[in-house]
Amino acid sequence: MKIALAQINYFIGNFESNVSKIKNAIKKAKQQKADLIIFAELAVSGYPPRDFLEFDDFINKCKMAIESIAKECTDIAAIIGSPVFNPEYQGKDLYNSAIFISDGKVKSSHHKSLLPNYDIFDEYRYFEPNREFNVINYKGYKIALTICEDLWNIGNDPMYTINPMDELYKQNPDFIVNIAASPFNYNQAEIRKSIFTQNVIKYKLPLFYVNHVGAQTELLFDGGSLVINKSGEVVDEMKYFKEDFKIYDLKSINEIQPKITKSKKAEKIALIHDALVMGVKNYFEKLGFKKAILGLSGGIDSAVTLAIAAKALGNKNVYPVLLPSEFSSSHSIDDALQLAENIGCPYDIINIEEICRSFNNSLNSFFKELPFDLTEENIQARTRGVILMALSNKFGYILLNTSNKSEAAVGYGTLYGDMNGGLSVLGDVYKTEVFQLANHINKFKEIIPVNTIEKPPSAELRPNQKVSDSLPDYEILDKILYQYIELRKGPKELINQGFDEEIVKKTLKLVNTNEYKRYQAPPILRVSPKAFGIGRRMPIVAKYLS
Amino acid sequence: MKIALAQINYFIGNFESNVSKIKNAIKKAKQQKADLIIFAELAVSGYPPRDFLEFDDFINKCKMAIESIAKECTDIAAIIGSPVFNPEYQGKDLYNSAIFISDGKVKSSHHKSLLPNYDIFDEYRYFEPNREFNVINYKGYKIALTICEDLWNIGNDPMYTINPMDELYKQNPDFIVNIAASPFNYNQAEIRKSIFTQNVIKYKLPLFYVNHVGAQTELLFDGGSLVINKSGEVVDEMKYFKEDFKIYDLKSINEIQPKITKSKKAEKIALIHDALVMGVKNYFEKLGFKKAILGLSGGIDSAVTLAIAAKALGNKNVYPVLLPSEFSSSHSIDDALQLAENIGCPYDIINIEEICRSFNNSLNSFFKELPFDLTEENIQARTRGVILMALSNKFGYILLNTSNKSEAAVGYGTLYGDMNGGLSVLGDVYKTEVFQLANHINKFKEIIPVNTIEKPPSAELRPNQKVSDSLPDYEILDKILYQYIELRKGPKELINQGFDEEIVKKTLKLVNTNEYKRYQAPPILRVSPKAFGIGRRMPIVAKYLS
Repeated sequence: MKIALAQINYFIGNFESNVSKIKNAIKKAKQQKADLIIFAELAVSGYPPRDFLEFDDFINKCKMAIESIAKECTDIAAIIGSPVFNPEYQGKDLYNSAIFISDGKVKSSHHKSLLPNYDIFDEYRYFEPNREFNVINYKGYKIALTICEDLWNIGNDPMYTINPMDELYKQNPDFIVNIAASPFNYNQAEIRKSIFTQNVIKYKLPLFYVNHVGAQTELLFDGGSLVINKSGEVVDEMKYFKEDFKIYDLKSINEIQPKITKSKKAEKIALIHDALVMGVKNYFEKLGFKKAILGLSGGIDSAVTLAIAAKALGNKNVYPVLLPSEFSSSHSIDDALQLAENIGCPYDIINIEEICRSFNNSLNSFFKELPFDLTEENIQARTRGVILMALSNKFGYILLNTSNKSEAAVGYGTLYGDMNGGLSVLGDVYKTEVFQLANHINKFKEIIPVNTIEKPPSAELRPNQKVSDSLPDYEILDKILYQYIELRKGPKELINQGFDEEIVKKTLKLVNTNEYKRYQAPPILRVSPKAFGIGRRMPIVAKYLS
Repeated sequence: MKIALAQINYFIGNFESNVSKIKNAIKKAKQQKADLIIFAELAVSGYPPRDFLEFDDFINKCKMAIESIAKECTDIAAIIGSPVFNPEYQGKDLYNSAIFISDGKVKSSHHKSLLPNYDIFDEYRYFEPNREFNVINYKGYKIALTICEDLWNIGNDPMYTINPMDELYKQNPDFIVNIAASPFNYNQAEIRKSIFTQNVIKYKLPLFYVNHVGAQTELLFDGGSLVINKSGEVVDEMKYFKEDFKIYDLKSINEIQPKITKSKKAEKIALIHDALVMGVKNYFEKLGFKKAILGLSGGIDSAVTLAIAAKALGNKNVYPVLLPSEFSSSHSIDDALQLAENIGCPYDIINIEEICRSFNNSLNSFFKELPFDLTEENIQARTRGVILMALSNKFGYILLNTSNKSEAAVGYGTLYGDMNGGLSVLGDVYKTEVFQLANHINKFKEIIPVNTIEKPPSAELRPNQKVSDSLPDYEILDKILYQYIELRKGPKELINQGFDEEIVKKTLKLVNTNEYKRYQAPPILRVSPKAFGIGRRMPIVAKYLS
């Protein structure tokens, strides 16, 4: 039994592109005499289709896609994910299904039982959970077909009260198939391998796992589809952050020595880097844009954003603009120019002093003798925002946002100013990690000027401003933020961990009272287990730790 | 048996305020010799607490609140909503519970079985569904205690496969209690009465229903708690959009002739108006702000927004600013000034021409001979945005957004310009409904100048611009949008309804490709069954009907 795994970058709602990629893979698998080809969860629609699932027209298009694909499946069987209508009177209108196709026809549909509904997942919003369990009989083999979360209710603190694989196991299957849409975070590949190995060891069956690859707005899918033999050894691991296609022989996988050695665990920062590059690349490609614009300050956030964008789009397709004011230091301009030269990209300098003066003139009679404060700082940031958007509008760039996660957390940024952008590249990367990314980018050659990495961070919106004037050191701040945001620890737990009570209270208050700013922030490429955006849902008007 | 219903405006996470309001109601009920007092769903935390529910610290604070409330419940019993930990090893960590308190102690917890997870609801994100059913025995009566959605699986197209009340009914209860957090839309009060009447008729039991009242950011709770006798007659209906407290005698409710006559069905536009006024009022109060700023164009959207804000905050607490450019018509300025005078509020005029010129000077050498286009229009809108935000920053106003739902749908608005604001007042009100609101506001006296209502809509961002140059007539546009957004009809269904194919395709494409703008829009007060914001979740990068 030869089994092909197709790891594909789908495009949500683009049935033409998805069907064409699927059919090409089927053709290739047939040429190579595969008996079965496996695609990912909700492959025909792309994942996550979100509320498009509530449109009958959309589900009908999925159905037509499956029918068209089925016709290609002569001399080969296919497993492919698609939403399907629930024919029952009671329950939600849809199932999240794995369709089994052979002899050119849909033979059976196998629905997802465990519907993730936490963090970025909303599956119970759309789908009825499955309650019937049937293995697939094909060419003398019994296949236990599961969908993503169906295999994840193993280990401590089970979130669901059933285990679909326990039910399928009663029918004596020969191997497990899991089709998935499992998004990347820097821990996910290791967790995934651990979860699947636990399943394989529990059921003593080999496992074929097919994941999505590619970016869907903020969600990054890293691929890394897996074949695990019945001893629990990872026989093969498909490419990360790239499409891939391979064929495996069921009989021989148990004899193959696993190629992956335990030592080859990818480094967190390298993973984040590669994920962000894919995220920027796919965002532009799928929206049909080629060029990015961004404000370059001479600081580390815009420097790292530029380097990542240049890697994703090509150095001639990134256009940094320096927007100095009276408070910009000469070293900032020098550092920014040096960076643009190192990258080899076009750039421009537009001084914002005259425009800011013009705003201040118009507002003078209202502000009277009131002192310079946050208002005037924000006018600078917003003037930059208007200029970048004007260039973006006139020439068809997408503006990249350069804020980091620490700033987004505590609201250190100007709404409608430096918080502008179509996409936030670093919004899920803490400031201390941004420094690590800079060093990673400089690994073989100094791209980001060392001075940018070494100087103290400053917004340069007033004379001699330093971030440390208004925030705790990033080393401490980021640790508190991680405990609060990723691990959801409360103030008592943080203080018990040894953090200063006043700093803890001030930090949590800043996080909670700045929810209104994050609500209007651009989508953020998600690289951590808990990113701001669709996976973290907070009330704006509330009074908790604030 | 005397039963008190307490309809309260809770404050998410503000345990001090919530507990204090609850204790005051208990005190009042005790003074009036009530046997039982009923509060709403998740009363102690406020609704919806969203991801605060994932913090153990937050749940512990709910527990402490309940313990403190329980001590007041001597000589009276209470039913009150709170999240509680799920003690079982398997399943989600929490239940959404109704706590029964008597003799100063928590006697039992009754968990919600049907967890809404559609539109603005995310309850399966947090809660394990209940599977055990027990009536409460109290003073010789058996109480069937249900939570909101538990009674809603009645009628056509049931979303769930069980009916909790069927289970409770087997234990021969004497009456039904339903505690809820059922948000307003202009249809909801009628639907609610119909659903509860169906339940009462099915089970032949009287029903006491207690809802939230007040705004929680975008969600508006209208109150309207109900008492229905066993014949299915609405005996009483508590206040809409206001806190309320009443005591009913169980024995006599079946003898009371219903006060509410069928004819008194509230008018849709009046409901929307009152809901928006409450929404603005509560948003400011709960955030601790008093004053609103907004840009006044002379057009109908900013006029209606101003009138609603003045009603909510007082005419001296709204501060409209006229921001004319070279393209502003004199009638626009006149209309705006007339409106400010009618409202009796302070206002100012700040001409933006000089600032726009200053932007154009700085950008001239880049734009060269390229023609005036959307870029220059956006610069005007963004200049206005910067000025309004500067005044807001300097003096502590909240900027109100004035976009309507039709504009938000098709992306007719400038991101970081007129899309700015802490809160969108009209973002769930179609343009044709904005006109109806204006007439409603003018019902007894001309507040909004008739010329503002009668002139053709224009953005005034280029010479002689009219909205009808770029969009279909609002009469047609709004009908298409309603079919697509509220009813989720696809292009084929719309064309079959008789709409022009080209206009349908253009409109749906505009809606889908402008998702990126709405992602960064302010929270929108929700008055319809399907508002933009947390209840409509769409991918940004996608290719469907676009």
